[in-house]
Amino acid sequence: MSHTVEILSVGTELLLGSIANLDAQILSQGLSELGLNVYWHTVVGDNPQRARDAVAIAKKRADVIITTGGLGPTCDDLTKNVLAEAFGKKLVYHEASAQRIKSYFARTGRVMTENNLQQAMLPEGCTVLENDWGTAPGCAFEAEGVHVVMLPGPPSECRPMFRYRAVPYLQCLSEGVIASHTLKLFGIGESQMEAQLREQMNAMHNPTLAPYAKEGECELRVTAKAASDEEAQALLQPTVEQVKALFGHKVYGVDVSSLEEVVLAGLREKGLTLGTAESITGGLMAKRLTDIPGASQVFRGGIVSYTNEVKQSVLGVPGDVLEQFGAVSAQTAAAMAEGARRVLGCGIALATTGVAGPDKDDRGNEVGTAFAAIAVQGETYVRPLNLGTRPMRQRLRTQAASHAFDLARRYLSGLPFEG
Amino acid sequence: MSHTVEILSVGTELLLGSIANLDAQILSQGLSELGLNVYWHTVVGDNPQRARDAVAIAKKRADVIITTGGLGPTCDDLTKNVLAEAFGKKLVYHEASAQRIKSYFARTGRVMTENNLQQAMLPEGCTVLENDWGTAPGCAFEAEGVHVVMLPGPPSECRPMFRYRAVPYLQCLSEGVIASHTLKLFGIGESQMEAQLREQMNAMHNPTLAPYAKEGECELRVTAKAASDEEAQALLQPTVEQVKALFGHKVYGVDVSSLEEVVLAGLREKGLTLGTAESITGGLMAKRLTDIPGASQVFRGGIVSYTNEVKQSVLGVPGDVLEQFGAVSAQTAAAMAEGARRVLGCGIALATTGVAGPDKDDRGNEVGTAFAAIAVQGETYVRPLNLGTRPMRQRLRTQAASHAFDLARRYLSGLPFEG
Repeated sequence: MSHTVEILSVGTELLLGSIANLDAQILSQGLSELGLNVYWHTVVGDNPQRARDAVAIAKKRADVIITTGGLGPTCDDLTKNVLAEAFGKKLVYHEASAQRIKSYFARTGRVMTENNLQQAMLPEGCTVLENDWGTAPGCAFEAEGVHVVMLPGPPSECRPMFRYRAVPYLQCLSEGVIASHTLKLFGIGESQMEAQLREQMNAMHNPTLAPYAKEGECELRVTAKAASDEEAQALLQPTVEQVKALFGHKVYGVDVSSLEEVVLAGLREKGLTLGTAESITGGLMAKRLTDIPGASQVFRGGIVSYTNEVKQSVLGVPGDVLEQFGAVSAQTAAAMAEGARRVLGCGIALATTGVAGPDKDDRGNEVGTAFAAIAVQGETYVRPLNLGTRPMRQRLRTQAASHAFDLARRYLSGLPFEG
Repeated sequence: MSHTVEILSVGTELLLGSIANLDAQILSQGLSELGLNVYWHTVVGDNPQRARDAVAIAKKRADVIITTGGLGPTCDDLTKNVLAEAFGKKLVYHEASAQRIKSYFARTGRVMTENNLQQAMLPEGCTVLENDWGTAPGCAFEAEGVHVVMLPGPPSECRPMFRYRAVPYLQCLSEGVIASHTLKLFGIGESQMEAQLREQMNAMHNPTLAPYAKEGECELRVTAKAASDEEAQALLQPTVEQVKALFGHKVYGVDVSSLEEVVLAGLREKGLTLGTAESITGGLMAKRLTDIPGASQVFRGGIVSYTNEVKQSVLGVPGDVLEQFGAVSAQTAAAMAEGARRVLGCGIALATTGVAGPDKDDRGNEVGTAFAAIAVQGETYVRPLNLGTRPMRQRLRTQAASHAFDLARRYLSGLPFEG
């Protein structure tokens, strides 16, 4: 039997739009990987009657109900009360959980108010899901043919509680295995990618191909369902190869998280170091690189040269280059990269310059005009970019940084800079 | 009569967790501001029967249904078909929309396939909501006492479509006005803030006080409902002043978006320029500053010195300071800030150094040990930070950058650096 899942999130802050429903996203990803079909997300506020009604609907249409939120003392443990009632269960005092709550407060040096012990009241006969990341324990039970799992709301608790507590509990429900690989592409538009794949995508059932676009990149997720992981992998492999052949050098990795991760891995492999010189990206390149733990092994540093004076004094861009071609030019991009390589003492330097808007620059360059450059031993290459004129500052900056990373990962893999 | 709203999002990508339901968040915020009560969020996939069932439920419990997604050719205009059917409406060809779709493709230089014109089929008698941000028009109608508004799914379309098309349509439903102000606090924990406010919060009904914690900062939203904006503002003002008095210098702004925005505004006001020297934050300070349009007026640039050599060669941190005290020390932080001020030629320089993890540094400094420094004419001040040892790299980095910004905004406002 194939299971159908409803994720029921309880929290007025969601209905007010104070936060996005990240819990539902986190859970949905994980449940898909378990091969469970998530068919509904529902959000209700901290209101007992509407929560009761929502549970009644979920109970009729889903056979797995996973709740997030509504467990702490601030909402009177709404979710636990409503779910227990819906399945005719009493709440009983769970001594071990009470101890855990007390020691959590002792450990974090906070004063525990009595209402916190309410959290140790749990549905009779349930499996307690211990919370190592906060105070409210989760719980799980099966009743009337429905599996119920309750998790705390804050994503910092919900995420590990799902992974380390709920997944082991739910694994027994999963039949067969769903496996997937994600191909990452840079330098191709989503519509162009879809156009090249459409016929193939429509004809496929197992594995399936799903395209996503985000932050100026494209992803293709290949997913297969089979009795075992080995079988699923065997189904996946030919499609992965086919897609790689179709899109060539535009595929920058499989199951990698980002261009910058690929760049750092390439640097490590080749024993090279990296530095950056940033104008339009204003620190974003360095930030993205240093988001990744261990970046310090190969990333030496960067210069954010947001004025011409800093480009000259720190990076050594010649004054006549700036005067003749302007700050937004291939010549300046090249000089910035070469300067960064010299000043930072690194094997590879990347540079960006461009107009992020909202206005044209003083030489009349349109918003979106930009250059990404790479300087390596004996060679400097500049890629001119036309990132579009719509007022999307963050997107322009992200794209410019990604283009520079693309130059680096191509150099590190021995690929041509274009094509 | 008070209206109750259900947001119904259609999209399998939401149920797979490929994206978070940002649409629901955007709409919820806007609807709250209109004084409409959002009581339910529902998500279903691209499945006609489950979409039909969800609409039947929404129709019974809500009197405003706002849908997002499921409008384009890739899902066969699922949402439009299901909603039209639920309210007994035919879809009719809307010539003006067809023309807009054709010209959208012409303008963006893409080839239009015939199925795109399906998007011009709209429920009879509806108000067409023109889409200037994509191809699928939205629409709105009232039937059987229910208001229905359909918006496209991609947030880049949904957000402006809601603001410029749906809000004007919905405004007539809103009774009275909801106004709010958001106070931003830095340097106080959420639980501490809540503890100081709890009694007051529980006693208040109009205005209400809602605390939020995010990215290591706290927000307090004060919201009032009244017949007019003037009345609402009159209700809000005393509470805003009370909160400011309670938390003193920890309140860094009202209705401002971020610490860095306050810093940039202060620099502009004082005619000063800023530069940065970053180790633990690795470019994040510069990135956050240059996220804001117009930063270039006062932000000269930054140095990301991720190695000791770059700290010495570019920032001029003395070798014996690094040797004696290490890279993660108050002395190095001070020397970095002073160096950045000199090298970048700016009035104020900020610096950060610290251990972002995952491991201790080579001198045995724990993860979370960090220093934020400010150098101004004639003075350098260092704030030692203890950001906790839990492995949350991004949070540590964000906090370290925010502490540096906090020093700058305090200096620019003539406040003491602590307290």
